[in-house]
Amino acid sequence: MSKHEWLHENFEPAGSAVGYRITGKLDEVQSPFQKIEIYGSTDWGNLMLIDGAMMLTARDNFLYHEMIAHPALFTHAAPRRVVIIGGGDCGTLREVLKHEGVESVTQCDIDEQVTRMAEKHFPELCESNDDPRAEILFDDGLAYMKNCPAASVDVVIVDSTDPVGPAEGLFNAAFFADCARALKPDGILVQQSESPLVLLDLIKEMRGEMGKAGFKGFQTLPFPQPCYPTGWWSVTMARKDKALGFDFRHGDAMNKNFDTRYYSADIHAGARHLPPFVAEALKD
Amino acid sequence: MSKHEWLHENFEPAGSAVGYRITGKLDEVQSPFQKIEIYGSTDWGNLMLIDGAMMLTARDNFLYHEMIAHPALFTHAAPRRVVIIGGGDCGTLREVLKHEGVESVTQCDIDEQVTRMAEKHFPELCESNDDPRAEILFDDGLAYMKNCPAASVDVVIVDSTDPVGPAEGLFNAAFFADCARALKPDGILVQQSESPLVLLDLIKEMRGEMGKAGFKGFQTLPFPQPCYPTGWWSVTMARKDKALGFDFRHGDAMNKNFDTRYYSADIHAGARHLPPFVAEALKD
Repeated sequence: MSKHEWLHENFEPAGSAVGYRITGKLDEVQSPFQKIEIYGSTDWGNLMLIDGAMMLTARDNFLYHEMIAHPALFTHAAPRRVVIIGGGDCGTLREVLKHEGVESVTQCDIDEQVTRMAEKHFPELCESNDDPRAEILFDDGLAYMKNCPAASVDVVIVDSTDPVGPAEGLFNAAFFADCARALKPDGILVQQSESPLVLLDLIKEMRGEMGKAGFKGFQTLPFPQPCYPTGWWSVTMARKDKALGFDFRHGDAMNKNFDTRYYSADIHAGARHLPPFVAEALKD
Repeated sequence: MSKHEWLHENFEPAGSAVGYRITGKLDEVQSPFQKIEIYGSTDWGNLMLIDGAMMLTARDNFLYHEMIAHPALFTHAAPRRVVIIGGGDCGTLREVLKHEGVESVTQCDIDEQVTRMAEKHFPELCESNDDPRAEILFDDGLAYMKNCPAASVDVVIVDSTDPVGPAEGLFNAAFFADCARALKPDGILVQQSESPLVLLDLIKEMRGEMGKAGFKGFQTLPFPQPCYPTGWWSVTMARKDKALGFDFRHGDAMNKNFDTRYYSADIHAGARHLPPFVAEALKD
């Protein structure tokens, strides 16, 4: 038996828990917005928790970061200008910058301490922070999108925590309307959309709010994510022009000149087919 | 905050845990082979644990049962005779019997108490137990396969617990050789093959043992399974005749005359494309 302790996150909305065998607490900071804790683990590398919720493990964050970035970027015909709301750990930024066609990315997270903790404890996620195409802001994402020039952005990525606390405003029609305004006509909004098994209602509600904001076409892609409740997660893409659809640049995804560990053109194509119980719940 | 307790399974080999918010212990039996416990939960229905390991929740077992049964049965050209080793909760049996072409299924689990507990606490899994095509044995699966007439079986499904304790013998070449002998030349062996993220070595080892036993072609299909460690699981199929491959009866799967909640022809097709890091690890 292990001599190490176990750290469990009991996720009340789903009645389920995830946990890790830890070697100890490495760091902790109470920012103006939330409490950020870093633990070492025996098998999963460093862990980041925000207000007690598991955000990252060094071992499995590639799943989430690849799936929130690459499907949207390969669905857009030619993404040049990208905005990331949230994403303070910089892992999504790193994936976006792998696309050579991307000319500028602004990451706007309200909490500078998330990025400072990532720089210290997940340096691999921050390895592209000095890319000249990257702008890293610590500011209110709601205000950033409100003030964003109209029709100026190709892809908005909402890489947020759960819809409670600082991220609550990132899941409603007012925010999505600002995203819609900032996006070019062929732009894409993509947001992490929680567990397709236990939080289907939240995905439906999010799509509803996006609809009120003027988005017309939606696509939800599930993928495994062990450190989040149920180990099964999703992202949801939305477009204003339904006719543009969600066919993606399959050839470009096949021939991409960068490595990914989970994402591939085939994985992307496969994720587009929802399990029957999810498709049934999300049908219009 | 919840007034209920939480039950956590700390999975030592992966250093990760899953857990549920429980309403209480409903039943417990110490069989000659293992300890079986049933708990009620607030969000996941009844739970079954064997020797402290989460085996089933009422809410998510459909994922596993559909994925261990239907891909193999739709890959075989015309499965008539099926053997299930393990599977005492009878959920896999129920899925297999949905296939009208199946003429007889023998389920051989060493522990009668698993089935008795399933009948009491998961009656929905046992609803096909009286099907005249079903034979339910409580016996040693190793001996059953050893004594099985040669070339008599179309599909062998190994629906076992983890490779420790009573199920340890179900993961080695001697057992697989008996399966190979019992299978017809175009037969298929399918076995639950643990987490593609943290137990990749076990999948490789299992394929290696199957190879020693004369199996030549392999296909591993990942799928979500929240109640198992990491929430991400897999089944591995094996054939003696590599040339037969793993194309499946796509049209039959599309037009099946029974309902499934996770399995579909598209989900099956998508699962055949492994994420790059898994494909890399499993390549010959």
